Amino acid sequence: MSTKRMAGGLILVGLCACAVVAATMKAEEHPIRMVLVKQEKAWNLGDLEGYMQGYWKSPDLTFYSGGTVTRGWEATLERYRKRYRSEGKEMGQLDFTEDTVEMLSPDSAVGHGRWNLTLSGGRKLTGLYTVILKRLPEGWRIVHDHSSSE
Amino acid sequence: MSTKRMAGGLILVGLCACAVVAATMKAEEHPIRMVLVKQEKAWNLGDLEGYMQGYWKSPDLTFYSGGTVTRGWEATLERYRKRYRSEGKEMGQLDFTEDTVEMLSPDSAVGHGRWNLTLSGGRKLTGLYTVILKRLPEGWRIVHDHSSSE
Repeated sequence: MSTKRMAGGLILVGLCACAVVAATMKAEEHPIRMVLVKQEKAWNLGDLEGYMQGYWKSPDLTFYSGGTVTRGWEATLERYRKRYRSEGKEMGQLDFTEDTVEMLSPDSAVGHGRWNLTLSGGRKLTGLYTVILKRLPEGWRIVHDHSSSE
Repeated sequence: MSTKRMAGGLILVGLCACAVVAATMKAEEHPIRMVLVKQEKAWNLGDLEGYMQGYWKSPDLTFYSGGTVTRGWEATLERYRKRYRSEGKEMGQLDFTEDTVEMLSPDSAVGHGRWNLTLSGGRKLTGLYTVILKRLPEGWRIVHDHSSSE
């Protein structure tokens, strides 16, 4: 085999290895992105309890928003109910954009991006979110959420 | 040795092991907490560049605040300069409270809590922060910051 062909072969092996690494990383991120995709779908069906399945069902879940700390899954659901399902409120249509997911270990990840809410009459709300996710026996779940409004 | 004494000895060994684990975890968290302590100190000396040493000096640093995404260390410093050191602005006294640090892997951690700023005339501002930190060759640095105001 010529040195040139051998070098070409090595480059090819290198490229394949890179592609495998990239594919592995994408595969790792997939179940995490699915948590957010499922939340979006549940929200847009008006299914707040379905949306809440993305969160760790624990009193240790932390939810940061508007300067207020909400602790625990139940209290977080209650907060959402008051803000989006009580008299005169609406859930609207949710759309996560500019999403970034980064694995921090095989069992933990951070996701961040923008949330967009379209309400009746076309009124739009937007803001940013940062979520910490962990791989738990029940699957990937958000253990900490920091959401802020524009 | 009596069975009672042996059981007592095992409990003691168990307690010691727990104490060692707790001490190890605290020791792990220490350099991360120090990043925040150093930031606080630098801020309160009016040393914005010193404060910025806590952040990853990279164009990939992400800073979320007030619905706006700032990308990169330089842009983040510039944002701080405009908000706290331009004409008629002041840095005030910073105090991080309700701090929680959690290791996500040996090389990554999440910190969250409350920031409190006391300005001249006793005016107070407060809000929440969530920071992702990584252990880099230069030490632990914040790679993503999400800060929001009340």
